Amino acid sequence: MKKILMLTTGGTIASAPTEDGLAPQGSNEILSHLGLAPMDFELEVREVLTLDSSNIQPEEWKIIANAIYEGFEGFDGIVVTHGTDTMAYTASMMTFMVQNPPIPVVFTGSQVPISVPLTDGVFNLISAFTMAMSGRRGIFVAFDRKIMLGCRAVKVRTSGFNAFESVNYPPVGTINSSGLVIHEEYLPDCSGEPTLNTNLETEVFLLKLTPGTNPRIIDMLIDSGAKGIIIEAFGAGGLQFIRRDFTSRLQYAAEKGVPVVVCSQCLYERSDFSVYEVGQKALGSGVIQGYDMTSEAAVTKLMWALANTEGREGVRELFAKNLAGEIEIK
Amino acid sequence: MKKILMLTTGGTIASAPTEDGLAPQGSNEILSHLGLAPMDFELEVREVLTLDSSNIQPEEWKIIANAIYEGFEGFDGIVVTHGTDTMAYTASMMTFMVQNPPIPVVFTGSQVPISVPLTDGVFNLISAFTMAMSGRRGIFVAFDRKIMLGCRAVKVRTSGFNAFESVNYPPVGTINSSGLVIHEEYLPDCSGEPTLNTNLETEVFLLKLTPGTNPRIIDMLIDSGAKGIIIEAFGAGGLQFIRRDFTSRLQYAAEKGVPVVVCSQCLYERSDFSVYEVGQKALGSGVIQGYDMTSEAAVTKLMWALANTEGREGVRELFAKNLAGEIEIK
Repeated sequence: MKKILMLTTGGTIASAPTEDGLAPQGSNEILSHLGLAPMDFELEVREVLTLDSSNIQPEEWKIIANAIYEGFEGFDGIVVTHGTDTMAYTASMMTFMVQNPPIPVVFTGSQVPISVPLTDGVFNLISAFTMAMSGRRGIFVAFDRKIMLGCRAVKVRTSGFNAFESVNYPPVGTINSSGLVIHEEYLPDCSGEPTLNTNLETEVFLLKLTPGTNPRIIDMLIDSGAKGIIIEAFGAGGLQFIRRDFTSRLQYAAEKGVPVVVCSQCLYERSDFSVYEVGQKALGSGVIQGYDMTSEAAVTKLMWALANTEGREGVRELFAKNLAGEIEIK
Repeated sequence: MKKILMLTTGGTIASAPTEDGLAPQGSNEILSHLGLAPMDFELEVREVLTLDSSNIQPEEWKIIANAIYEGFEGFDGIVVTHGTDTMAYTASMMTFMVQNPPIPVVFTGSQVPISVPLTDGVFNLISAFTMAMSGRRGIFVAFDRKIMLGCRAVKVRTSGFNAFESVNYPPVGTINSSGLVIHEEYLPDCSGEPTLNTNLETEVFLLKLTPGTNPRIIDMLIDSGAKGIIIEAFGAGGLQFIRRDFTSRLQYAAEKGVPVVVCSQCLYERSDFSVYEVGQKALGSGVIQGYDMTSEAAVTKLMWALANTEGREGVRELFAKNLAGEIEIK
């Protein structure tokens, strides 16, 4: 009989009402409401954390990565329950911290606590268990009848059951009346040896531009210790350079050796800073293009890259590689 | 015969290839390729700006607002051509600067220059002209067969023709084979006297949280002169408070009298910080809820509110009012 490991971290799925609003409980909250349909596996549960995912941060990522890596011994698949709010960040980061997982690692959660009759938690959990038993290697998110790459999932809805979308990459599986249908052609290449590397640089800042953003923010960030910056620029790739001159501040980042990754603040589709004059000016100062990466993947990859390569050039080389489906290099 | 005023500001629609990539040209670039189907109106064109919209900033908003307000005299409708990258910000800001327009004001642009045979510019322009002749009062965006409130439009795709979505509010019009169909029930209430007020506070910062964001950013922003902050928090409404304690920094903002508006970084659906413990802690420090507003509308409304009301309480009162469809107060 297959053995599945469930790691619980808290989140809405395990939450119950308290005086201060909904707050996460332990793994028993999930188990007592799961009412498992007769699924053919042996389940072991390890309570890793009991947190609202707004409080899951780089330090927790290391704990979760270690718990996942330990589960590679003796289990056929791993399910991680997690709050939805930062699940896309955690799942993206696991893609880099735990490469080439030998078994499926499937994140899931819910928009409604599992104790509520109309919860989405039970269906999401059973979806995650089903994917965990599929033998497909990778870090995934199972949510609302879709299986997505962890590094492509984005939470796009605050409360709807269809909270997550697989951005700029098709779902690798869908669940319909025939059960789980896996789209093999979109599975990541995890054929290498499993690796665990939880080194991180946390001093990374995500800067979403608006018209009027004062470019001195770049100096302030660098002078106060930021080691990497991701800019969510406008549209297909533009930053203001008249009056508020971001180009010269990017030059300052270059002088200080701080890598800057540029993405789009548009949720969907690829950015390319080489098309417009306003983007070319940014490229001239040596920024790294995020192309079709999600912001969640860009932030986590930059944190990981800064701790595991040398300098701006090392980071640039790592961003030019597709590690686990997070970027399409053309 | 009806009279329509077209204000041009640059953007892809008016762009042509240059040595440095695509760059905007003047209004003639549009006019020479428009090849107007025989539409029954008199057209006057005023070239207001010639900018890539990444360079359209608060100073330009004032120029555009003045040009719109001047057009109320002698015209039945106004079309503004604008780059797509920051069109949602400009259209949102016009909603606050130019209230109760007596005629339709319709922003449009294109993803492909109008000189290219497969451009979307011609169809978008004719859509905008059609809406401009409809007599419906308001600030609108016409794009890819949809008419949206200016304060609800968001650019969600970098390159697709369906670049814009009307977020958390239905489109007020759609274009199909019967022509322009207006959904009257969603039109904004513009029954008051037209007003022009271009006062703005530009020192406003949009902070999109990630796990790991160092809370000292709040202090740095305030100490360097930020007069207002919008936080894109997690999910339905959460900020980290363990280890990296944003709650205490929000308290600092309160002490300094700097208003903080909290929204979600999820593109769709309403945020409400009262549901979870992690959100309630933020509310305790007096932040203002953005509820279902787009980030574009929240940023522009805060810039405008800071210059036109007194202090945190004045801003709070203004955010508790729906001025032109930008927020649903429940």
